[in-house]
Amino acid sequence: MEKFYYLDSAATTRVFDEEFDLMKLLNENYFFNPSAQYKQAISSKKILDEARENICSILGGKDGNLLFTSSATESNNMVFNCLHLRAGQEVLISAGEHPSVFASSKLLEKKGIVVKLIPIDKTGKVDEGKFVSMLNEKVALVSFIHVSNETGAINDIKKLTSIVKSFNKNIIVHSDGVQAFGKIKVNLRDLGVDLYTISAHKIYAPRGIAALWFRKNVVIDPLLVGGGQENGLRSSTENMLGAASFSFAATKLDAEREKNFELVTNLKNEFLRKLFESDAGKFLKLNSVDGNSPYIISLSFLGVKGEVLAHALELDGVLISTGSACSAKKAGNRVLEAMGIDSTQIIGSVRISFSAYENYDLNEIVEIIVKNVLRFEKNNL
Amino acid sequence: MEKFYYLDSAATTRVFDEEFDLMKLLNENYFFNPSAQYKQAISSKKILDEARENICSILGGKDGNLLFTSSATESNNMVFNCLHLRAGQEVLISAGEHPSVFASSKLLEKKGIVVKLIPIDKTGKVDEGKFVSMLNEKVALVSFIHVSNETGAINDIKKLTSIVKSFNKNIIVHSDGVQAFGKIKVNLRDLGVDLYTISAHKIYAPRGIAALWFRKNVVIDPLLVGGGQENGLRSSTENMLGAASFSFAATKLDAEREKNFELVTNLKNEFLRKLFESDAGKFLKLNSVDGNSPYIISLSFLGVKGEVLAHALELDGVLISTGSACSAKKAGNRVLEAMGIDSTQIIGSVRISFSAYENYDLNEIVEIIVKNVLRFEKNNL
Repeated sequence: MEKFYYLDSAATTRVFDEEFDLMKLLNENYFFNPSAQYKQAISSKKILDEARENICSILGGKDGNLLFTSSATESNNMVFNCLHLRAGQEVLISAGEHPSVFASSKLLEKKGIVVKLIPIDKTGKVDEGKFVSMLNEKVALVSFIHVSNETGAINDIKKLTSIVKSFNKNIIVHSDGVQAFGKIKVNLRDLGVDLYTISAHKIYAPRGIAALWFRKNVVIDPLLVGGGQENGLRSSTENMLGAASFSFAATKLDAEREKNFELVTNLKNEFLRKLFESDAGKFLKLNSVDGNSPYIISLSFLGVKGEVLAHALELDGVLISTGSACSAKKAGNRVLEAMGIDSTQIIGSVRISFSAYENYDLNEIVEIIVKNVLRFEKNNL
Repeated sequence: MEKFYYLDSAATTRVFDEEFDLMKLLNENYFFNPSAQYKQAISSKKILDEARENICSILGGKDGNLLFTSSATESNNMVFNCLHLRAGQEVLISAGEHPSVFASSKLLEKKGIVVKLIPIDKTGKVDEGKFVSMLNEKVALVSFIHVSNETGAINDIKKLTSIVKSFNKNIIVHSDGVQAFGKIKVNLRDLGVDLYTISAHKIYAPRGIAALWFRKNVVIDPLLVGGGQENGLRSSTENMLGAASFSFAATKLDAEREKNFELVTNLKNEFLRKLFESDAGKFLKLNSVDGNSPYIISLSFLGVKGEVLAHALELDGVLISTGSACSAKKAGNRVLEAMGIDSTQIIGSVRISFSAYENYDLNEIVEIIVKNVLRFEKNNL
């Protein structure tokens, strides 16, 4: 493999090596089907329950349930597919939601449920004023992304939830915390939401495992039915190795969260300073604002297409994204458009996401970016 | 961990150690999000596509699509949730289906679709005569389990599919091949089914990955929507490490299938011979018949409750199941009842499933079983 700099950690992360050792060890003695009745299987179930309790505790969500799912997409699909909603009700989602929230809520329209987009402002956050005016007696469910996967904008989930609950405490509040968990402090008791989505593969744990946390009073049906695992809420043989890895990574990221945050904040600031001071600086526009998560930076070089730049950087070993890589097919950028960013800037947009566990030579990275920006800017590509 | 004999491999299996090494290696260089646009991510996608092609090839299903899912339960839920069925149509499932087929087909009744159970006979197989009489112009979908997870009974999927297709080639045929794949020869071209479910964790690969194979002309909607991965058929970041492990295990089991089959057949025969010749022999009744898959044996000791026996054996390190461990909560045994087995025998039933990759001392195992059977039989427990 050629040398590369990975600046796309919001798309996915590398599993920590220790997790393979952990999985191998558990596979030796705890590979049993947790639904089996022998004591050895019960000890397998214990692995699962310890992982569940640990993640709940890190989330500050011990008073709720943590349901292991196979992906954040599955968790988000459960929210919109399996809560008890009925025709005539309204569901509000922010315009900054991840495609899995966007697409799964859209399906509610077939059931006669009205889905409305809550405007976001120029900073990428929910426009509180406009949001408040949308609340009415038909609203049954509201969903706000915690940290934007496009810009790193952080919604004030505590305040937004409190606005909803003051209006009507029966409105269910969901937040997609995929880009928040492990990176910024998440305390579900404090946030006050009813459901919260997290993913393992965004925090250095394997694919195939994720979770949906929800308060004990939330009534939700299973998406997958069959053997009745997870108290009937998700049939499928339980993925203990995945859950244990997820728990391991969650613990490590929680312990190192503040240190990592500082490191990535410094990387971001230093990176942007160098870029602004470079010969490409005069073309640079930020789509992310101060106060966003430092882990995700959306920026544009005016006159250079984001897609062209990303492909050129790839050849020089700098891996970035032209937007959410969570989306297999992508047209434009729904979130940046909703922020009111002009189309020239959107065409130029790229997403940079640093990891606290990758090595970066910022001088070399900036040099490569500047070289390519100047090359394309001249030719107006 | 105390010494134990694992006779419950139909419930789940231990991941092969080599797979952790493989995953660790792939994680180093191919951890990228396959939906990202840089060439490194495209090489990650190649890992996924190679796994897909390899499994398709082993299945004899290169003319169809293999959709990676998170579990066989998810695959089976897709079949009953996502095919285009409409009110007034009929769905026929065999009485020997796995809980995930049973429960997910049941949900169709809410949509005005009639779900009927195809009787099975004393051998555990679909009763062909009764089945033929159920075919009518309303039938849109039929589902037959390939190898029973309860008894090892093997349905003649080729013949059953041909009966369906002769009646009406537009009726969709699904088979749940979870207990067949990797153990008996599966050739989808030969079987003629439209959809086929397989699972990784039943063949020594990790949880969190499975697949649904289907012919190219089958119209199916996604169960999970969002980023549009898997050609829009299953959103979620693709699980390459899981897919590569699944592919590795599938290749190994395919190469060793005949050797393993012989080994497990010999284990089964020797095990039953010793049991029948023992002092407990006179209480022994088989619920599985000759010609079943040797990997799954259902048997009963008259006068001894299966549950009591299984718990006693567990203390002596012999791990068996009282029925399908795929089911987290279990009442009676739906499949044995459908076979017309009398209730005394059902109460006594246990499931033994040998693995070709575990070590067994048959003399010791039989000695432990006989000792416990005689102990409980005397007390009529």
